[in-house]
Amino acid sequence: MSEKLGVLAIGHGSKLPYNKEIVESVANNIAGKHTDVVVKVGFMNMNEPSIEDALASFAGTGVTTIAAVPVFLASGVHITKDIPKILGLEEGSEKTSIQLDGNNVTIVYGKPLGGDELIADLVFKRAQEAL
Amino acid sequence: MSEKLGVLAIGHGSKLPYNKEIVESVANNIAGKHTDVVVKVGFMNMNEPSIEDALASFAGTGVTTIAAVPVFLASGVHITKDIPKILGLEEGSEKTSIQLDGNNVTIVYGKPLGGDELIADLVFKRAQEAL
Repeated sequence: MSEKLGVLAIGHGSKLPYNKEIVESVANNIAGKHTDVVVKVGFMNMNEPSIEDALASFAGTGVTTIAAVPVFLASGVHITKDIPKILGLEEGSEKTSIQLDGNNVTIVYGKPLGGDELIADLVFKRAQEAL
Repeated sequence: MSEKLGVLAIGHGSKLPYNKEIVESVANNIAGKHTDVVVKVGFMNMNEPSIEDALASFAGTGVTTIAAVPVFLASGVHITKDIPKILGLEEGSEKTSIQLDGNNVTIVYGKPLGGDELIADLVFKRAQEAL
């Protein structure tokens, strides 16, 4: 079986529309650039689909590995505890697997955005746009 | 008087260290790349310095405009209400001024990061790193 990558972009979820809009925009952007990758979104709370439903929705796509990446700026208790629990990760582990279409699909857990240089460039761009 | 730009990178603040680390890393990165710009950090709550103290700390730097940019992924009530109130912005306005060293310094309010293509690139990078 050839390898096929899935990306699950995980949002915090919000009563306001902004978080969902951003996570969906990120997912659409990735899907547009990487047409060989199956991209889905899932939300920790307050929006649909849930992370569980999003994982289940990879059924039929043929993905062999799903990278579950939190679209969060910083780490925190949601990143270290809440989302790993929903993904079924054992404490301290960043890898697990689920059954989809009778196959074992690996799930790997990605890091949040963090203080990457790209974030600094974007903050400076926002500063210049505001002038 | 020649123009000199200040950038105030605004963090949410957190009891955990991650948010402050990221906002400081973003500020250091901008300051390293743009040596003509005065960069400060300020936090909405839970960390020091506060946004008010950070604004006051531009005294003596000679900045003529401060771009106050929230290092937040998505808009929400903090972005639309709480931070504008602290900055002294009138409702719906994205510009005000403060007195520093006896001079009028313009404050402009920047947008949060949002669903920029750079964020999507970074989420995909995090997915690849996790494999």
